[in-house]
Amino acid sequence: MIVEVVASGTELIRGRSIDTNSPYIARRLNAAGHDVRYISCYGDNIRELCRGIAHAFTRAQIVIMTGGLGPTVDDLTRQAVAKVTRRKLVLVRAELERQRNRPKINERQAYFPKGAAIIPNPVGTASGFLVKHGRRVLAALPGVPREMEPMLETTIPMLNSARVTWIDKAFKMAGMSESAVETELYPEIRKFKNVDYGITAKSGVISVILRVHGRDAAGTIDRIRTLIREKLGNAFFGEDEDTIGGRTAQLLLARRKTIAIAESCTGGEIASRLTDVPGVSESLIEALVTYSNDSKVKRLGVKESTLSAHGAVSEEVAREMAEGVRGRCDIGVSTTGIAGPTGGSAEKPVGLVYMAVATERGIAVERKVFGGSRWEIKSRAAEFTLNMIRKALLDEK
Amino acid sequence: MIVEVVASGTELIRGRSIDTNSPYIARRLNAAGHDVRYISCYGDNIRELCRGIAHAFTRAQIVIMTGGLGPTVDDLTRQAVAKVTRRKLVLVRAELERQRNRPKINERQAYFPKGAAIIPNPVGTASGFLVKHGRRVLAALPGVPREMEPMLETTIPMLNSARVTWIDKAFKMAGMSESAVETELYPEIRKFKNVDYGITAKSGVISVILRVHGRDAAGTIDRIRTLIREKLGNAFFGEDEDTIGGRTAQLLLARRKTIAIAESCTGGEIASRLTDVPGVSESLIEALVTYSNDSKVKRLGVKESTLSAHGAVSEEVAREMAEGVRGRCDIGVSTTGIAGPTGGSAEKPVGLVYMAVATERGIAVERKVFGGSRWEIKSRAAEFTLNMIRKALLDEK
Repeated sequence: MIVEVVASGTELIRGRSIDTNSPYIARRLNAAGHDVRYISCYGDNIRELCRGIAHAFTRAQIVIMTGGLGPTVDDLTRQAVAKVTRRKLVLVRAELERQRNRPKINERQAYFPKGAAIIPNPVGTASGFLVKHGRRVLAALPGVPREMEPMLETTIPMLNSARVTWIDKAFKMAGMSESAVETELYPEIRKFKNVDYGITAKSGVISVILRVHGRDAAGTIDRIRTLIREKLGNAFFGEDEDTIGGRTAQLLLARRKTIAIAESCTGGEIASRLTDVPGVSESLIEALVTYSNDSKVKRLGVKESTLSAHGAVSEEVAREMAEGVRGRCDIGVSTTGIAGPTGGSAEKPVGLVYMAVATERGIAVERKVFGGSRWEIKSRAAEFTLNMIRKALLDEK
Repeated sequence: MIVEVVASGTELIRGRSIDTNSPYIARRLNAAGHDVRYISCYGDNIRELCRGIAHAFTRAQIVIMTGGLGPTVDDLTRQAVAKVTRRKLVLVRAELERQRNRPKINERQAYFPKGAAIIPNPVGTASGFLVKHGRRVLAALPGVPREMEPMLETTIPMLNSARVTWIDKAFKMAGMSESAVETELYPEIRKFKNVDYGITAKSGVISVILRVHGRDAAGTIDRIRTLIREKLGNAFFGEDEDTIGGRTAQLLLARRKTIAIAESCTGGEIASRLTDVPGVSESLIEALVTYSNDSKVKRLGVKESTLSAHGAVSEEVAREMAEGVRGRCDIGVSTTGIAGPTGGSAEKPVGLVYMAVATERGIAVERKVFGGSRWEIKSRAAEFTLNMIRKALLDEK
């Protein structure tokens, strides 16, 4: 079934909010064998919403809406769907019951297009609904992710059942350019006639995005995985939802290695990405954001003389930080750099970062100049350092 | 001028990537006086892209595309625009020159729809372009944010000039529910006949999103700001791009306060949000991610007896962590909790977090049970703690 995801919210078209719901819905529906082809965002405007829904019905068999089910005056999804599908809004008593002891304005959440099936909300106050419109079906879900996500799982079996005829797969690489990955892989992957190919790059991660058709889809994916492993070696780090931080944390846990981190310019970003992984507390002994020179000296034993001779942003300080934080751990990691936007010089420009990984076998230091905003420099340096840790773990084998 | 932003990339409709470019473009174009009404995402499919562009021309005067200008086989924006606007793709010699010493596949980046104005790319290899189509105008920019963003600034003056007839404004609140904010504010704001009103909630932040029309737009915004300050007091923390972390960092710097942080379950997220603000190194002495009990004892002086009597996730340990990390700083902060998904019990469920802020005047501890995924619990706890710091700073006045 062809699917359009329609996200509503003035905050989206004003650019005040980033739409993370639509990609989530797309991922889940594609995995259920549907074909999400369109994502559209509209403001909280009844006319534009109605036109958007009507247009979605011209090109998609399933329309999934997110947002606009709340109690506030700009929540218009119920009205818009009623209008386009030519239904009345009717009060559902059981839903009114649920709004008891809530602010008066919540009562509007008890009205639904006539004949709609209610999609219960296990977490919040706004129930969703599903309506049929000719041979189309539309489901409306709230915009709050932790309400929408479980409700989507209830919704998927209510959609016209689909036969799964393909498998989506993403293979992920780090430490190579997009052109280099394509040059290596595309001539081989194009030989598979049952594969749609795409490639994309973000913060140093290159994703090859495949849709593999037919009965032997799983077998084809296995063959392509083997191919990528042969061609790209350790640059190939994961699949689908894998992140460099996640893979690194898994490797740390699998190999029972302990790690300690001293972050300066990345400001806690490396620790935060590693701790997104459940159970990493087994490996991550501690992470110190030693922003001040004082803290570098006191907490890590960096020498005053090294700081004054080379400055905080230097290979020498990165080394002493990594060795100092390592202590009795297997791995000690450090970053020191200039995240900007000010503080750069000709010799040490904004974006300059030294990253070090110390193990019992020695210490690796990398010097990089990352581009982009302060936030991008932090993020790229964190990803790069996590990949250094990953490679150090793989090399130990 | 009515604007549609068209983002292309199979990774978007597969849900493998989150589209952060479209909100950025929307924000910049709205600020330049345009009216962004639609954001659409399509895969790298020539037929769908052509249909999408043609549809955008039916409802928008300006179409801004992002993505699909790279060198790889799935980069189809040049072809799709040429097809819809009935132009040939022609080689631009100066652009071919720029691709020298690059992989052979980069040469396709030197082809543009005939008559297009080139939009130079100061950072990467793919130039953008602008074409007129009847009374419409379309600009195509790359998908890499740090290339797209400066190119957008070049593009904006190339678009048909617009008179700015409104001002967009977001007012942001923390520590209140969406219903409570609306109940307080909407009856007052609706009295302004020149104001479009919207409201949205995310991770504990409620944003009131206004578009104020007419000559006295700036005056109206001032009056609404005063009104919000009177009605909501310290819950009102900022405007537009402000974040709780950013406002807290600004307050720390303005009041010359030093801070040290001990994070357990938030895993570096508080430090990372504070260090998104340039110059915060003046205030943030250090942040310690003391994940292990050992590290809590060694680095913070938490007592072994407190850990064994109450467990690491307890009010008592939160207190000792905040006091221990504070040292000679003005403010000491701590978090300890269960981010999940496992490790919870009936007494201490997943999502339980203790947060403490210690100053010379004493210590405040809050106990909360946050909902959502591991990542959401980390994120909500970090925001909540940052807001505690902000309120402690405001109370000191």
